[in-house]
Amino acid sequence: MKTSKEYKESLRKMRPNIYKFSELIKDVTTHPATKRSIEGHAQIFDAAQKTEFKEILTTNSHFTGQPISRYLSIVQGPEDMIANVRMKRLMFNLTGTCTGGRCVGFNAINAMWATTYEIDKEMGTKYHQRLQTWLQDAQKRDITLAGALTDAKGDRSKSPLQQCDPDLSLRIIEKRNDGIIVRGAKVMICGVAAANEIFVMPGTGYKEEEKDYAVSFVIPRDIEHLTIIETRRPNDTREQEEGFDAAVERGGITQSYLLFEDVFVPNDRIFMCGEYAYSLKAVMNFIAPYRAAIGGCVAGQGDVMVGAAALMARANGLSEKVFRDKLTQMTINNETTFGMGIAAGVLGTKHPSGVWIPNTLLSNVNKVHVATLPYETKRIAQEIAGGIAETGCLPSCKDLNDPRYGKLLKKYLQANCSGETRAKIARLIEWLTIGSGVPGCMHGGGSPDGAKLVINASIDIAHDIELAKRLANITEDIKVETKKK
Amino acid sequence: MKTSKEYKESLRKMRPNIYKFSELIKDVTTHPATKRSIEGHAQIFDAAQKTEFKEILTTNSHFTGQPISRYLSIVQGPEDMIANVRMKRLMFNLTGTCTGGRCVGFNAINAMWATTYEIDKEMGTKYHQRLQTWLQDAQKRDITLAGALTDAKGDRSKSPLQQCDPDLSLRIIEKRNDGIIVRGAKVMICGVAAANEIFVMPGTGYKEEEKDYAVSFVIPRDIEHLTIIETRRPNDTREQEEGFDAAVERGGITQSYLLFEDVFVPNDRIFMCGEYAYSLKAVMNFIAPYRAAIGGCVAGQGDVMVGAAALMARANGLSEKVFRDKLTQMTINNETTFGMGIAAGVLGTKHPSGVWIPNTLLSNVNKVHVATLPYETKRIAQEIAGGIAETGCLPSCKDLNDPRYGKLLKKYLQANCSGETRAKIARLIEWLTIGSGVPGCMHGGGSPDGAKLVINASIDIAHDIELAKRLANITEDIKVETKKK
Amino acid sequence: MKTSKEYKESLRKMRPNIYKFSELIKDVTTHPATKRSIEGHAQIFDAAQKTEFKEILTTNSHFTGQPISRYLSIVQGPEDMIANVRMKRLMFNLTGTCTGGRCVGFNAINAMWATTYEIDKEMGTKYHQRLQTWLQDAQKRDITLAGALTDAKGDRSKSPLQQCDPDLSLRIIEKRNDGIIVRGAKVMICGVAAANEIFVMPGTGYKEEEKDYAVSFVIPRDIEHLTIIETRRPNDTREQEEGFDAAVERGGITQSYLLFEDVFVPNDRIFMCGEYAYSLKAVMNFIAPYRAAIGGCVAGQGDVMVGAAALMARANGLSEKVFRDKLTQMTINNETTFGMGIAAGVLGTKHPSGVWIPNTLLSNVNKVHVATLPYETKRIAQEIAGGIAETGCLPSCKDLNDPRYGKLLKKYLQANCSGETRAKIARLIEWLTIGSGVPGCMHGGGSPDGAKLVINASIDIAHDIELAKRLANITEDIKVETKKK
Amino acid sequence: MKTSKEYKESLRKMRPNIYKFSELIKDVTTHPATKRSIEGHAQIFDAAQKTEFKEILTTNSHFTGQPISRYLSIVQGPEDMIANVRMKRLMFNLTGTCTGGRCVGFNAINAMWATTYEIDKEMGTKYHQRLQTWLQDAQKRDITLAGALTDAKGDRSKSPLQQCDPDLSLRIIEKRNDGIIVRGAKVMICGVAAANEIFVMPGTGYKEEEKDYAVSFVIPRDIEHLTIIETRRPNDTREQEEGFDAAVERGGITQSYLLFEDVFVPNDRIFMCGEYAYSLKAVMNFIAPYRAAIGGCVAGQGDVMVGAAALMARANGLSEKVFRDKLTQMTINNETTFGMGIAAGVLGTKHPSGVWIPNTLLSNVNKVHVATLPYETKRIAQEIAGGIAETGCLPSCKDLNDPRYGKLLKKYLQANCSGETRAKIARLIEWLTIGSGVPGCMHGGGSPDGAKLVINASIDIAHDIELAKRLANITEDIKVETKKK
Repeated sequence: MKTSKEYKESLRKMRPNIYKFSELIKDVTTHPATKRSIEGHAQIFDAAQKTEFKEILTTNSHFTGQPISRYLSIVQGPEDMIANVRMKRLMFNLTGTCTGGRCVGFNAINAMWATTYEIDKEMGTKYHQRLQTWLQDAQKRDITLAGALTDAKGDRSKSPLQQCDPDLSLRIIEKRNDGIIVRGAKVMICGVAAANEIFVMPGTGYKEEEKDYAVSFVIPRDIEHLTIIETRRPNDTREQEEGFDAAVERGGITQSYLLFEDVFVPNDRIFMCGEYAYSLKAVMNFIAPYRAAIGGCVAGQGDVMVGAAALMARANGLSEKVFRDKLTQMTINNETTFGMGIAAGVLGTKHPSGVWIPNTLLSNVNKVHVATLPYETKRIAQEIAGGIAETGCLPSCKDLNDPRYGKLLKKYLQANCSGETRAKIARLIEWLTIGSGVPGCMHGGGSPDGAKLVINASIDIAHDIELAKRLANITEDIKVETKKK
Repeated sequence: MKTSKEYKESLRKMRPNIYKFSELIKDVTTHPATKRSIEGHAQIFDAAQKTEFKEILTTNSHFTGQPISRYLSIVQGPEDMIANVRMKRLMFNLTGTCTGGRCVGFNAINAMWATTYEIDKEMGTKYHQRLQTWLQDAQKRDITLAGALTDAKGDRSKSPLQQCDPDLSLRIIEKRNDGIIVRGAKVMICGVAAANEIFVMPGTGYKEEEKDYAVSFVIPRDIEHLTIIETRRPNDTREQEEGFDAAVERGGITQSYLLFEDVFVPNDRIFMCGEYAYSLKAVMNFIAPYRAAIGGCVAGQGDVMVGAAALMARANGLSEKVFRDKLTQMTINNETTFGMGIAAGVLGTKHPSGVWIPNTLLSNVNKVHVATLPYETKRIAQEIAGGIAETGCLPSCKDLNDPRYGKLLKKYLQANCSGETRAKIARLIEWLTIGSGVPGCMHGGGSPDGAKLVINASIDIAHDIELAKRLANITEDIKVETKKK
Repeated sequence: MKTSKEYKESLRKMRPNIYKFSELIKDVTTHPATKRSIEGHAQIFDAAQKTEFKEILTTNSHFTGQPISRYLSIVQGPEDMIANVRMKRLMFNLTGTCTGGRCVGFNAINAMWATTYEIDKEMGTKYHQRLQTWLQDAQKRDITLAGALTDAKGDRSKSPLQQCDPDLSLRIIEKRNDGIIVRGAKVMICGVAAANEIFVMPGTGYKEEEKDYAVSFVIPRDIEHLTIIETRRPNDTREQEEGFDAAVERGGITQSYLLFEDVFVPNDRIFMCGEYAYSLKAVMNFIAPYRAAIGGCVAGQGDVMVGAAALMARANGLSEKVFRDKLTQMTINNETTFGMGIAAGVLGTKHPSGVWIPNTLLSNVNKVHVATLPYETKRIAQEIAGGIAETGCLPSCKDLNDPRYGKLLKKYLQANCSGETRAKIARLIEWLTIGSGVPGCMHGGGSPDGAKLVINASIDIAHDIELAKRLANITEDIKVETKKK
Repeated sequence: MKTSKEYKESLRKMRPNIYKFSELIKDVTTHPATKRSIEGHAQIFDAAQKTEFKEILTTNSHFTGQPISRYLSIVQGPEDMIANVRMKRLMFNLTGTCTGGRCVGFNAINAMWATTYEIDKEMGTKYHQRLQTWLQDAQKRDITLAGALTDAKGDRSKSPLQQCDPDLSLRIIEKRNDGIIVRGAKVMICGVAAANEIFVMPGTGYKEEEKDYAVSFVIPRDIEHLTIIETRRPNDTREQEEGFDAAVERGGITQSYLLFEDVFVPNDRIFMCGEYAYSLKAVMNFIAPYRAAIGGCVAGQGDVMVGAAALMARANGLSEKVFRDKLTQMTINNETTFGMGIAAGVLGTKHPSGVWIPNTLLSNVNKVHVATLPYETKRIAQEIAGGIAETGCLPSCKDLNDPRYGKLLKKYLQANCSGETRAKIARLIEWLTIGSGVPGCMHGGGSPDGAKLVINASIDIAHDIELAKRLANITEDIKVETKKK
């Protein structure tokens, strides 16, 4: 398995095709726009070699029995899901934020593992075998694999073919003997700069006439005709400055727009190619584990917020006991998303392909918590930390070091520690709650409204009504005409 | 294993020692004050014989391998805890309320299983062997076992010996060669009328000088010198009436005050007798599984509320789709307490005695949810069901059958079903949300403030602070003087 | 103005036409089913004569300048609305619950004051003059006036004429020269037993073909062919017992079904008779002040809950400081509904008829708070008070006085006060939170979903969008086709 | 009264003493670090000349009867407070954010108006006369007046004299015949760059030995020996770029650290000078109106969020009706803080000095809402707007205009409007919810915990307990010993 050094080298060898602020990024490992994200991902490799984290971050290949990164493994049972949730919590603990260049890809492998198995079984295709071959090789190469689902979509009230431009969702524009040509964009894709390859999946279910949109494949990040534009993030220009205003060195998010300008994908890397009937299934297979495991993510960042808030309390001269109720509430929030992730993971089912698929209902309940509880956790962190952290309300690092008045600023920032330390804590909390460290926990992995639809569909109203009727000794049958709207 | 008929017979054979409204209850299985609770417990026996519920309600004795009631089993691993949570959800589904005459006893066995193992190991006593012997016999007899922890306590700012009366917590007043004499009261004890025996445990931790309060034992419910007074519950006198104003026939709660007027307990039924150092441990061993599993209880009642609310919507002529968001929120609440119970159960540890002890932190987080989320679920049920159900705002069953105006009332109560059916649904929702079916989910199994203390004690502040310091690159050590108060 | 003695006498003189449990109530002032409600209303008369409350409970007639009950006055400006909100808070303070036999009538007078003014102006009718004449006389007689809006309604998906029975909403079945005959029912009507007269209004807006439902009038409570059935309330049979299990002597709710079996109403008491176009307006005129002022109600009961919870804390030997955060949250809830009521009252507009109409948007926002915040307040009261109060988990008053074991029960109930006092506090909290004292704050005055519709209709989306466009310097016009569903 | 042009000229004439990023800002009206804030404040002058806003933004001087800016007026009754709340809402509507260079000064004038009146009356000083003289002149000059309360404070567990440095709160270091010399810092001071003068007040109450900290005065912003350092804000460097990534041109916040390096203040500008006994009173006089009126601020920004979210819904091709419940909840939040501000303002009392002081309890309840509800409003805005707005997840304006791939980005950003318009809306929502437009509503005007202390102190526990005792017919006196801690 790779070291973090080898990981970075693998990135440096790739063709530059990532831009930000109109500039081509030549070396993603050193450019300020991408290096923090890569440092975060590099910590995965560092941690995997530490005794205390090895069991969480690595597992054995079910192909070979050899140790592999858990991010390249097939989830085979409740223990694997528990480890998955813990892994996500750990990586937020270590980086303070998202290492999104791996978990989407990890989920995509597993979702398509089940999906290709089904397609092959019913359609006589060979996708599952291809996926096996590619995956075994990917494990050997120990690649970092991003995942891409979200299409540009255009007008949300229209289907892909109704849009003013058919490219608004990624589509096959040509099928050749040796592969396909795809055009379109995948947008808001996490951690691409830190990845060697990208696993592409449909972002939604498609109908027969939309079958060209039902496509899944894996490509090198630097494949020909793929152009990647990094999006802005809160406070991203701070990362180009010296000093501690960008609070965290070894952690950061990137999210990109991937522009597919007629990219060729060879056959052995294609896992769905027009089988529209499986596109929604693929998405659902993706959602269940993803929405379970993200409970670990926000819990992991919540741990850091607990620590940062308690640290600021101490910096202000106050025992964290003063804020006992608030820290308890933060902990309740953290453990709720973590626990619900565990529960969803454990109460799953084994798919015939060998993949363990978490409980859909509990996963989606967790998604709703993930989209709400962290907002409260952040609010409480700001409440404990005071006005200085709420909006990062303190002078810049540059000002703190100004020869004319820097000393005065440090004097007035000091409390139960030096002014500089207090400034660093404030910047960390700003970064976590209203800065570059804020992950997109609301819409990442899909919106809470989408989750609520799944929850609602999971309610067994007829069963619950029978429970009520039996208890109240009601025999009358009550029907409601469903009126045509 | 017993049938429900045999179960009721076993109760009828016991000495009457239960009172309500100043009246001695001669036959608990037919008296209106207790029969609904017993019918609820009888459903456990009925369901255990049904194929679809057998696996949840029964297991195999680890002594003999023979099938036994799960309520008399030792919890040995995550699967047993999952089944425990499911069992509680199921019984609320079937009875609409609490069958508290079994789960406290079940938990007490397990808590004392671990505790007696530890006492024996360190003190050379024989409690664990006694417990094994008794339990094996209890399994054979298939008894219904209530549990009793809560003492009268008196002034909450004082310890037992500081009270105006030393009896305010249950205590040993005499040790004899063949047993002990105990005096005091256990209060607000659930389901005693439905039980054959009662497992008594300390309600809190005690110090050396309070060692006479550190006592645990099991007694027949009808033991000499034990007097039991049933408490009032909301709308309890309705249960003495004819008709459907008491909405549910086969389900109900009782809670009692147990007055120990110098009760003699023989040695072979004593499991702690002065070993004060283990009293708090015993309580903690009780709390972890209890606060995990009650997530199933409130989820189970929540299912019924979902059904009842949807049924009222239909009765009013409306599709439940009108209330989709509300039903979804009820479901989120249900699945959250259920899921957290599962997670706490799964992430436990194996005690050397063989008992599986759930995760304390997650259990206590769940206790907080159990003390809050069902209130919202009830509120939403009332919101969907309308004013008629909010405070049970409809004429009595007697009035609905009045020869003068009963027909008119039924006419004006009808909607998309008969007036009588609509009345029954309203009464069910009243019963569930502001009537006899409301379980004490706030303080049952201890208060949420107690749970928050445990949560707070579980926060590893030092670890979280280190995470934050490492991320923000802070090396300064920040200490807060802990001032003497 | 009447004394409470005269008030009760006026009730005793009326024809008995109220039933509960199939029994005709001969004297509402002494019958256990109604006397607590009447005692509550009697406190209005007592308080009106006390210096500290006079200004709140009385005002001067705008007809004569003479002192009158505020409940019979026309609200003419912000000060009157402030006094209205305060009056409701005061009466909950004094009775612990709702004195609903007056406020609905009070609101109805004011709503119809504006509505009759408009009808007359546009239709040339004489309703406003009739209302003036009746009201001036009512002030002189100092009557207690209930109000009735809610119809039986039947299937909520159908209009009155689509129902299986046209009587499911109250309607005119015959117009005569000297008056009208009405048939139907008004349901869940508050405080009728405590009233001398009843003001009837439409419960919703009607269309032309439904004009027979657009009817408003005032009648004596004991008018011929009106039969009144009292509904059950939680724990209502306790009120027939001796002792303190029914916690409050001088306060209580009644809610009734009014059965109009072809009641004749003479012309001079009719204020709307087929003018369907004004029926919705009448309802809206009712809603605005009503939903403002009920903020005072729940704040007033909240005050009592703060007191009762703090008292139980003390009874348990604890300073209320232990529960500081909880009492603060209860207070925030109380002051929020109170304050929003004040704000809605103050930011109103003067109707040409002279009535001051509160702010519709703020009134309806307050209705949503009133339907949610008191649930939290009750939950916190139960949390502070402990398991004994949560579901009233203590033996009955009768048991506490049992010669065999009553002394023991009192011994074990004592804490930092006698057992009996502690029992009374627990019963009070049960009464307030899960007993007879719980007012229907969710649906009383209409449902929160109805309020949300009004709120939504009040949002000036176009204006808010313009604010956003101007700020973001957007000139493109963005239109959404409203598709036919 | 000034025009916005004259206002900006007045700023340009001042001595440059403001720094950011180590750079002296020569012209605050054009420098990117300050110009947006100044444009926001300039809108006050523009709007004051529009008919529809004049009544809100101006009033008549109670000295002269001449029209003046409301920000320089004495609040004399409920109407003035209502106008104050409306004014704050309006200015957030127009600027999208805080115009904090005026409201703190406005409040400070009023707080010190009452305080100086009291000091003079009891101590025989002349502060009130000085304040009158200065204010009348300030009205004439139509100045923009910032306010400064918050001291650096240092270790929060220590008093000013216990700190390692006595300067950590602003203090008098020398009293001269003609004035005083002050040293220290006021920190996190809003809108100073946009102000002509700064009104300084104590940030907390002081004891006798701390009397040198009890000081209040007003100074020109560019007074000798005052150095001002602007703090960083989220995304502040975007304001130095071209294009729309800094979403709003005419609105912005600045917050500064004011370093008083031995500043001389002449006598006629001093309003408190050692009268420690009035320092807490002054703060309380400040808090009541401030915490009432900020309800208008967050409501005003909430209006913009409603508009921006609805606009994004349309941009995405969806009717805002899809998000009806969410927009309704945002509105409830907006109207709650607005309404509570109105209620607090109206239920105030007239101070003998002529100032109207809002209701302390309701003001502080509102502060708690202001510190919580806007967080939910922001969360909902992000929920409606989707992932693109949640963390501003779209490429930079520069990238959108890149000659190589800009067109493609715009193509993929388009939906029911052009890609550029959609980008602008996303940036606006980012700015409002996680960017430069986020005001410090949690800690601005003091922390919610401080507000809760005031609320708690306002609870009349004794009165509420009496209400409960009276209702439950309890005569026993229950006392709790207050133990020495």
